[in-house]
Amino acid sequence: MSVVEPSAEALTGADALVRTLADCGVTHCFANPGTSEMHLVQALDREPRVRSVLCLFEGVATGAADGFARITGVPAMTLLHLGPGYGNGLANIHNARRAHAPMINVVGDHAMEHRKLDAPLSSDIESIVQANSSWIGVAETPADAGALAAAAFGAAHGPPGSPVTLILPADTAWLSGGQPAPAPQLPQPARVDDAAVAAAAAAVRAAGKPVVLVGGPALWQPAGLAAMARLKAAGVRVMIDTFPARQARGAGRFAPDRMQYFAEGAMADLDGTDLMLLAGTTTPCAFFAYPGKPSVLVPDGCTVHPLSARHEDTVDGLARLADALGAPANVPPAAARVVPDRPQGPLTPATCAQSLARHMPDDAIISDDAVTAGLPHYLATLAAAPHDWLFLTGGAIGQGLPLAVGTACAAPHRKTIALTGDGAGMYTVQALWTMAREKLPVVTVVFANRSYRILNIEMARTGAGNPGPAARAMLSLDGPALDWVKLAEGHGVAAVRAETAEAFDEALARAIAMNEPVVIEAVL
Amino acid sequence: MSVVEPSAEALTGADALVRTLADCGVTHCFANPGTSEMHLVQALDREPRVRSVLCLFEGVATGAADGFARITGVPAMTLLHLGPGYGNGLANIHNARRAHAPMINVVGDHAMEHRKLDAPLSSDIESIVQANSSWIGVAETPADAGALAAAAFGAAHGPPGSPVTLILPADTAWLSGGQPAPAPQLPQPARVDDAAVAAAAAAVRAAGKPVVLVGGPALWQPAGLAAMARLKAAGVRVMIDTFPARQARGAGRFAPDRMQYFAEGAMADLDGTDLMLLAGTTTPCAFFAYPGKPSVLVPDGCTVHPLSARHEDTVDGLARLADALGAPANVPPAAARVVPDRPQGPLTPATCAQSLARHMPDDAIISDDAVTAGLPHYLATLAAAPHDWLFLTGGAIGQGLPLAVGTACAAPHRKTIALTGDGAGMYTVQALWTMAREKLPVVTVVFANRSYRILNIEMARTGAGNPGPAARAMLSLDGPALDWVKLAEGHGVAAVRAETAEAFDEALARAIAMNEPVVIEAVL
Repeated sequence: MSVVEPSAEALTGADALVRTLADCGVTHCFANPGTSEMHLVQALDREPRVRSVLCLFEGVATGAADGFARITGVPAMTLLHLGPGYGNGLANIHNARRAHAPMINVVGDHAMEHRKLDAPLSSDIESIVQANSSWIGVAETPADAGALAAAAFGAAHGPPGSPVTLILPADTAWLSGGQPAPAPQLPQPARVDDAAVAAAAAAVRAAGKPVVLVGGPALWQPAGLAAMARLKAAGVRVMIDTFPARQARGAGRFAPDRMQYFAEGAMADLDGTDLMLLAGTTTPCAFFAYPGKPSVLVPDGCTVHPLSARHEDTVDGLARLADALGAPANVPPAAARVVPDRPQGPLTPATCAQSLARHMPDDAIISDDAVTAGLPHYLATLAAAPHDWLFLTGGAIGQGLPLAVGTACAAPHRKTIALTGDGAGMYTVQALWTMAREKLPVVTVVFANRSYRILNIEMARTGAGNPGPAARAMLSLDGPALDWVKLAEGHGVAAVRAETAEAFDEALARAIAMNEPVVIEAVL
Repeated sequence: MSVVEPSAEALTGADALVRTLADCGVTHCFANPGTSEMHLVQALDREPRVRSVLCLFEGVATGAADGFARITGVPAMTLLHLGPGYGNGLANIHNARRAHAPMINVVGDHAMEHRKLDAPLSSDIESIVQANSSWIGVAETPADAGALAAAAFGAAHGPPGSPVTLILPADTAWLSGGQPAPAPQLPQPARVDDAAVAAAAAAVRAAGKPVVLVGGPALWQPAGLAAMARLKAAGVRVMIDTFPARQARGAGRFAPDRMQYFAEGAMADLDGTDLMLLAGTTTPCAFFAYPGKPSVLVPDGCTVHPLSARHEDTVDGLARLADALGAPANVPPAAARVVPDRPQGPLTPATCAQSLARHMPDDAIISDDAVTAGLPHYLATLAAAPHDWLFLTGGAIGQGLPLAVGTACAAPHRKTIALTGDGAGMYTVQALWTMAREKLPVVTVVFANRSYRILNIEMARTGAGNPGPAARAMLSLDGPALDWVKLAEGHGVAAVRAETAEAFDEALARAIAMNEPVVIEAVL
C-alpha cells in the first residue's frame, strides 16, 4: 500500500505562495482582500499554519504586521487589493520600513492579460510600492509563485528587516502548476570588523566626552542592554535613537539616554560631546527642519565615527568594544521597581503616566502613538515593571492601534497597552473592530486633548506666527468633540471615559485585569 | 498720500501658492496638515477666498476634492503631509483619476537641505504619486511656487481633468520671495473632426445593430443628454460606461442603457451588436478577469469605431453625428416622474430603493458606494426626481462618504445622499466628523448586510470554490456587528437604525428634511 502525495500540478499559484510562506515560518496574515485575492483567501483556508486576521482597513493590516514582526522578529504577510489597497496600507508600511521590521505585503493584481486593458482598478502598482519596498516581485506564472514567496521571505529578513512586496496577478493565483519552494537560508548579521572595534576604542580613549548612539536589536536583546551598561561603566555616554522600533526597559534594565525630539533640546543635551560613535544606526538628524535651527544633531567639533551598520551584529560589536575599553564584565542591575502613589485630582498626562507606572504588569508591550502625551509616560515608566516600548518610527501617526493588534497576536500572554492621541487614533480607528473580533485583550488609552496638540507647538516653532481663526480650526479636533466611548462601542469594544486622575487610575487597573479589549478615553 | 502695496518679497512661497490658486478660482482646500504644512496653513488663513476644511484622514480629503470637482468642474486643493499622507489619500485619488476629475494635491515635504538627511518621515514622494498624477511639480524655491501652482491648475484641468501633485518643501513654503502667477488659459475640449463624424455616420448606416458607448461630460450636460436622445431616435442604441463619474438622470431626462458589471451579463446584453462607437470613452472591459470568461466586452464580429477621445468635445460630436444621421432635432422628454408607494414589510435593498425614489428631492446628488445594494437603487430611481448620480469610478471602496463631503460643500443648496455598504463605509468613516463640523446636511444610508457581500458573489464567480470557515470569516463583517448608530454619534452625527421598510421610509423622509448630517443604518 502506498500513500499518494497530491501532485504539484494540483496546487494553484496561490497555494504555492501560502504553503511556501508557512514552510518559512509565517504564521499570520493580516488581510483586507478583494476579488483579485479570492484564490489567496481560499489558499489560506487550506493552510492551517497561517492564521488569517481580517482588518477593515489596510492600514490596520500593515500596522499589525509591523507590530507582529517587532515582537517576534518574523514577518507576517498582508493581503492587499491592488494599488489602492496598498495605498491605504502605505503609511504603516512606511513606519515599518523605518522600524526595519520584516513584512511581506502580498498585493493582488489583475490577471496578466487583463492588466493590459486598463480596467478601473488598474494602476502602476510597482511604482506605488517602490518607495517602501526593499524588494519587489511579480509572479508572472503559477510556477513562479513559490520561489518568489521564498525570495520575499529572505529579502524581508535582511538584515536589517524591511517590508517587501510580492505582486500576484489573479490568474497566477488561480492557475494550477504552483510549486512550493524551500525556505531560504537566512543570513546572520555580519560580524563587526576587529579593526572597526579597535578604531572605535581608540577614538573613545582620545575623546573627552564620548557618546555612543545605538539603534536596532541591541535595544531589546539582553546582551545588547548588558553591553550598553558596560560601556556606560567605562565612561561612554550611551544614547539611543529618538524613535527606535523597540526598547526593552523598566526596573532592573539598563536605561540609556534618548536622543531628544526637538533639535534645540538635543543640541543642548549634546553640548561638549566630542565623539559620537554610531552603532547600528546613522547620523542623527532633526525630525523636521525649522528656520534657523540645526538639522544635523551633531555639535560643532564632534567627530562622528561608525562602529557598526544596521546589517551588522551591533550587539556583539558593543560587547567587544566594552572589552577593548576594559569595561567591567558585569554591571550591577539598574534601579529597582518603584510603584508610585495613586494619583489624585485633575487628569493630566502626568497623572495618567503615574497610573500606567503603577499598574503595568510584567512584560507588558506599550504601543506608543500618543504624540505629545507619550513622553510623560515614557519618563514615568523608567522604573515600572519590565516591559517593551514600541515607538512611532516613521512619524506617520495612526500606527498605535494597528501595532497593538499585531503585538497582541504575537504575544497573547503578554498585555499590550496602546497609548494614542485622539488625532492619531482616528487614522486607523478600525483597528478596534479587529481587536473585538479576535478577542485581543488590548488596553487602548486615548488621550483626548481634542486637538492636534503637537501642531500647536510646531506652528510656533516653524515661525509661522500666531494662528488666525482658520489656522486654529485646522489644528483643533473640537467642534464636535469625538466621543471615543461611542466610537469604541460602535466597533464592538467596551469603553469607559475618565475625567479625573482617580477615575483613570481605577479604569486602567480594571482594564488591565480584563481578558478582552477595552478603550479608556482620558479626557485631558 | 499714497497707498503702499505689500511688496512681493513680503510673500512666502506658501502665500504665492495659495494666492495663485485662489486667483485661478480654487475655493476649497480639504486638508490634513502636519508640521511641514504649517506655513501653508498660515497662508490659507490669510486667503479668505479659500475655505479650509479639516479632515481627520487624508482619504476623506481627496475623496471630498473629487466630489467637489465632479459637481463644479473646478479642482479643489488638498493639503497632505509628505509621502505617508499622500498614501492615505491615494485610493480616492485613484478613483478621481478614473473619474477624470481635476484635483490639486499639495504635498508638503521636508526643507530642501533636510531632504538629504533621510529623516524619519522622508520617502520618495515622487515615486509614490507618479501612478496617479498626470503632472508632478516640485517647488525648489519660493519664486517657483506661484508659477507651479498655476501650472498645476492648468494641468489638472486637462481636458480631460485629472489629479496632479504639487510638492512644496517646507523652506520653499516659509521663505519669502513668493510670486503669485496669473491663472493659465484653459483649453476647451478639441472639436471632433468632421471626418470622424462622417465616418461614424457611415459606419452606423452600414451596421445592423449599432451602439454608441458614451463617457464623460455628455452624461450630465443637457446638450449631451439631448444628443444621446436624438441618436436613440435615429436607431442607435445608447449606452454609458458602467462606472462613469456622474450621470444626470431621473424624470424627464434621457435614460441611456448602462454597460453591465458582470462580463457574462454584458456580453449577453450586447449579443448581435455589430458596431460599437466610442464617444469620450475607451473599449469596454470587464471589471475583473475570471477563469474562462471574456475580458473585453465586445462581441465577436462587432467593429469598434472611435468617434471621440476623452480630450475632445464629445457633446458636440454626438450632436453632429445625430445631424449626420438625420435624427429629429427634438425628442419628446423621457418618462415623467413616478412616485412609488410606501414600502412595507422586511427591509431589503429593493424596499430601501423604493423609499429613495419616493423621497429624493429635486436636484439631489447621490454618492453611490453601496456595492451590491447600489444597483437596486439606481434602477428604482430612473423616474424619480431629477438628480445626479455619482459612481464609484475606480473600484476603490471608501469613496462614498468623502465624495459626499465634497458635493455638499460644492452645492450647499442641493441635498447630498450618500449610499454606502457597511464594508465600504468603514474605510473612510472619519468623513462623518467633517460632515458634523462643517454642518453639511448629508443623508448617509449605510446598508448593513454585515458582510463584504460582493466578495461572496465574486468568490463563486472566480471559481475559487466554496469558502471554508477561514475564508468565510474573511468575507464577513459579523462577530461583532458594527453599530453604525454609535459610530455616527461618536463622530458627532445624529443617527437612527431602521429594521423594517416602514421605519426606513419614515427615517429617510425625516433625514432629508433636516438641515444637518444624519446617518441611517439600514439593517438588511
